Amino acid sequence: MIDRLIDKIEKTGNPSVVGLDPVYEMIPANIRKEMLDSYGKTPKAVAEMFIAFNKGLIGALCDIAPAVKPQIAMYEKYGLEGVRAYIETASYAKEKGMVVIGDLKRGDIATTAAAYAAHIGGVTVEGEAFDLWNEDAVTLNPYMGFDGIEPFIKPCNDLDKGIFVLVKTSNPSSADVQDIEAPGGPLFERVAALVAEWGKLAMGGKGYSRVGAVVGATYKEQGEKLRKMMPSTFFLVPGYGAQGGKGSDIKGFFGPDGRGCIVNSSRGIIAAYKNDRKYSDADFADAARNAALKMKGDIAG
Amino acid sequence: MIDRLIDKIEKTGNPSVVGLDPVYEMIPANIRKEMLDSYGKTPKAVAEMFIAFNKGLIGALCDIAPAVKPQIAMYEKYGLEGVRAYIETASYAKEKGMVVIGDLKRGDIATTAAAYAAHIGGVTVEGEAFDLWNEDAVTLNPYMGFDGIEPFIKPCNDLDKGIFVLVKTSNPSSADVQDIEAPGGPLFERVAALVAEWGKLAMGGKGYSRVGAVVGATYKEQGEKLRKMMPSTFFLVPGYGAQGGKGSDIKGFFGPDGRGCIVNSSRGIIAAYKNDRKYSDADFADAARNAALKMKGDIAG
Repeated sequence: MIDRLIDKIEKTGNPSVVGLDPVYEMIPANIRKEMLDSYGKTPKAVAEMFIAFNKGLIGALCDIAPAVKPQIAMYEKYGLEGVRAYIETASYAKEKGMVVIGDLKRGDIATTAAAYAAHIGGVTVEGEAFDLWNEDAVTLNPYMGFDGIEPFIKPCNDLDKGIFVLVKTSNPSSADVQDIEAPGGPLFERVAALVAEWGKLAMGGKGYSRVGAVVGATYKEQGEKLRKMMPSTFFLVPGYGAQGGKGSDIKGFFGPDGRGCIVNSSRGIIAAYKNDRKYSDADFADAARNAALKMKGDIAG
Repeated sequence: MIDRLIDKIEKTGNPSVVGLDPVYEMIPANIRKEMLDSYGKTPKAVAEMFIAFNKGLIGALCDIAPAVKPQIAMYEKYGLEGVRAYIETASYAKEKGMVVIGDLKRGDIATTAAAYAAHIGGVTVEGEAFDLWNEDAVTLNPYMGFDGIEPFIKPCNDLDKGIFVLVKTSNPSSADVQDIEAPGGPLFERVAALVAEWGKLAMGGKGYSRVGAVVGATYKEQGEKLRKMMPSTFFLVPGYGAQGGKGSDIKGFFGPDGRGCIVNSSRGIIAAYKNDRKYSDADFADAARNAALKMKGDIAG
């Protein structure tokens, strides 16, 4: 997965990932009306809105962006129908050749972590194999330690999948826990050392591990330091755009090979049509494409 | 929720919660055969197995155990059908009067955490309200800090729901991150102080907060210390039984009022029929009831 991601980034010249994090208010009025008319004021209507919206976005972005990152929370919000929309979104993005990073932030122990590992490892029922989630990689939470990570290592290697472990998240209160001072540095640096160590268990062929790290764009100095601490770890970088991160902030998150980073933007791309009066609701996909190209330029610069 | 939970614990005289964490191998052969015959070797068949198994367990346990804790990973493993089984399980337990603690361990930031909060807060579509997950409380991960917790506080108070935040988990490698030494003590004690502080925002009427903590039975001294540090925090205690925790280990996890704790057992109860040759597959629910009564006695002692 990490080699495929690097290839896709180089082919598109665009180290960014589109966060498919729809919220109800973002859905263009015509799609909203169509689904409410068809399904009533129901979670199913919202699920169909999300699917239609995401398919429009994926169609407009699949040749210029290497990957999508649907945030499962936005879908879980709408219960079972929402989860269905998540799975259909991942499936469609995969069909269009995009790398799919499921933003799950799961973290649990032993047999439970092994169950979550089905997200990338698939499942068998009496010998019949199923890949039910269509994800190439997922995000994980490190609070439980290696027990929560270990079951993912095998599918990373056997099926060429990937994981990104939270190290330093982009939100303001990430400091509450992640910045607690421990001997040798703040907690997130200790976690970074663990993630780098775990990464050795699943190296790809281009110098980067299938075990990546989540490092927020909003913490410039920390990201630069982490890059030096974990040279073989690919960074998934949230916090660009709506949360305040800029292209110039994340220059030092890339390795000396110009690789090592994929930057996420969600609202800034998928809701771009809302930020410029020249766009109508029907232009949402074009607006997203233009915003994605602008972001590509910003990061390249 | 926390007051209702305390009431249910006192009514049943049983401070324990049944972990509804089914795995395929646990399913009695008759149920397995029935569902494979009806649905083939498919995730849907497994979902139907889990529903039938859980309904049998809930029916046998609902008058002697106050609560169930389905672990969503076990269900997510089987994709959308699995998630449906989770929701139907929660719904049935609720119908039978049990408190439902969804073991999600979600943790995310800002708008994303707000989306996850729909698990307990419900969702509206154009003014129509839905409670899609049927949970009274959920478990959360603190790694993101207060941003990940805050959106849950309002439904805790407005809808009398609850959360349990991971403090010290029961697994061996919980030490990797949670025991990292920080000024004033290991990380999990720092997190405990935060959780106690957050708990003040959602106090129930019986001296305990709707913001609880997860504290593993496998760490006796730590649990006793945490009880002193956080007297108004209700503990959800995993690690009893199959993971090695005993009733005598957790005596000090209870407060001086004899309250403050609910102890989880999963395999030890739901797969009890596998541990004693006197039981046949058809006895799985009876075996679970007997195991639950035995556990109740062990904790009371």
